[in-house]
Amino acid sequence: METHNASTHEFDAAIALTPTGDGGFTGRTHPAYGNMVGPFGGVIGATLLNAVMSDPALLGDPVSLTVHYAAPIADGGFMVRARPLRTNRTTQHWSVELTQEGQVAAFATAVTALRRDTWSATDARFPDVPAASGLAEAPAIPRAAWTSRYEMRFIDGGPDSAVQDGHPSQSRLWIRDQPPRPLDFVSLSALCDAFFPRLFVRRPKWVPIGTVALTTYFHADAARLQAQGTEPLLGIAKALHFGQGFFDQSAEVWSSDGKLLAATHQVVYFKE
Amino acid sequence: METHNASTHEFDAAIALTPTGDGGFTGRTHPAYGNMVGPFGGVIGATLLNAVMSDPALLGDPVSLTVHYAAPIADGGFMVRARPLRTNRTTQHWSVELTQEGQVAAFATAVTALRRDTWSATDARFPDVPAASGLAEAPAIPRAAWTSRYEMRFIDGGPDSAVQDGHPSQSRLWIRDQPPRPLDFVSLSALCDAFFPRLFVRRPKWVPIGTVALTTYFHADAARLQAQGTEPLLGIAKALHFGQGFFDQSAEVWSSDGKLLAATHQVVYFKE
Repeated sequence: METHNASTHEFDAAIALTPTGDGGFTGRTHPAYGNMVGPFGGVIGATLLNAVMSDPALLGDPVSLTVHYAAPIADGGFMVRARPLRTNRTTQHWSVELTQEGQVAAFATAVTALRRDTWSATDARFPDVPAASGLAEAPAIPRAAWTSRYEMRFIDGGPDSAVQDGHPSQSRLWIRDQPPRPLDFVSLSALCDAFFPRLFVRRPKWVPIGTVALTTYFHADAARLQAQGTEPLLGIAKALHFGQGFFDQSAEVWSSDGKLLAATHQVVYFKE
Repeated sequence: METHNASTHEFDAAIALTPTGDGGFTGRTHPAYGNMVGPFGGVIGATLLNAVMSDPALLGDPVSLTVHYAAPIADGGFMVRARPLRTNRTTQHWSVELTQEGQVAAFATAVTALRRDTWSATDARFPDVPAASGLAEAPAIPRAAWTSRYEMRFIDGGPDSAVQDGHPSQSRLWIRDQPPRPLDFVSLSALCDAFFPRLFVRRPKWVPIGTVALTTYFHADAARLQAQGTEPLLGIAKALHFGQGFFDQSAEVWSSDGKLLAATHQVVYFKE
């Protein structure tokens, strides 16, 4: 197994930003993370988070990230600009915009915070599931390059498995970067958008579809993510409601040793 | 039972905005919706949504709303400004800022859309619960005026009921405006922030606490909300994880006849 470090992995090339000297950045979509049309949204969100985390004014670690996919993003270059809207003693609120040809194509808001030890408890439950090593790797989808950048091993709700455990749109899978890359906030934020649209799990019919807005809550600090290394993460994704052109889906992302690292929620447009 | 219409209910006074003539608005916190310190966050979020829905450029109905509580809001006046960041054929993305003394105290992003009939399905389940009429109304919390503006009838997870149905931080309750007010997007958005912080359900100890960011997905159009009228809504709230100064909680809001109207998620700061 080959492990790439952060400086040589294609993910890092895909989210790379170049300072423009006036506080902004330029970036460029990367073919390794292409989607059927334009770039994979998870990498766009990670790029916006990267702008926040690259800012000299940054306070602490990401606590929440909301990404709006406002319009189709064309393959090629873009501009990114992050602004702290409010800085408190231990928390900071951010706004980030990605523009192409002067128009906003994506934007994000984020909360970062200095975290410290407090009382803790996890009410969500880590399920009893087989280890990743005993499960087959799902094939990538040739028309969506980004799917070959994640190793996905489905427990249920996968492309070749209609059986779910009690919830009709649920998938449970072990997932990690492909090739493996040590986990950090930017890669975790992208992975939170790597759960296939629940509509396709629920209803085997192809229709145009696209995430409109995605929110992720981070339940780990940098040290916890670092401890995860390149081990597979357990993802559990399910939808709540489909109707009138939109559905929502939520997912939990767990470390290999049963710690909840992130909870993520999104609303998705579908054509019919 | 007295029913107020939208023009005379204190909620509408609390979210009222006055155009400043340059596209912005002024507003003012309302004592009926005060919290222990400053205003109830749900009404601030509803005020930001009201700015979007009052804008002549508005396209369609709200699909998602994310509100950031960036700093304490002082009782008194504030400025609100909404901007459509991107308008597509059937969707629109918004940014809204609330300022006091020139500083951003709260801000929001929203998606609005022209909705139309499509395939629909609800994967979340409406639970088997007793009717609102058979349950006692929970007493308001005197130090938090806003709690007397909601009629809450707990099935479980309430202030006088430690028994939960399988989830340690879950509450299930029938809830509506007090006095009753016909449901609409602004009142639904506020109600989505009316679920008590899960930390206090989970751990009976008073600590400083505050919602940092809240996202709501709307699963109903205006006609569906209108059909609900003033009937009680079923809320189901639960937390996923508490730790390092933050926890997240999610809630479903159901109509009295078992339609999922909204799903809402928030991340909350707690001191220890």
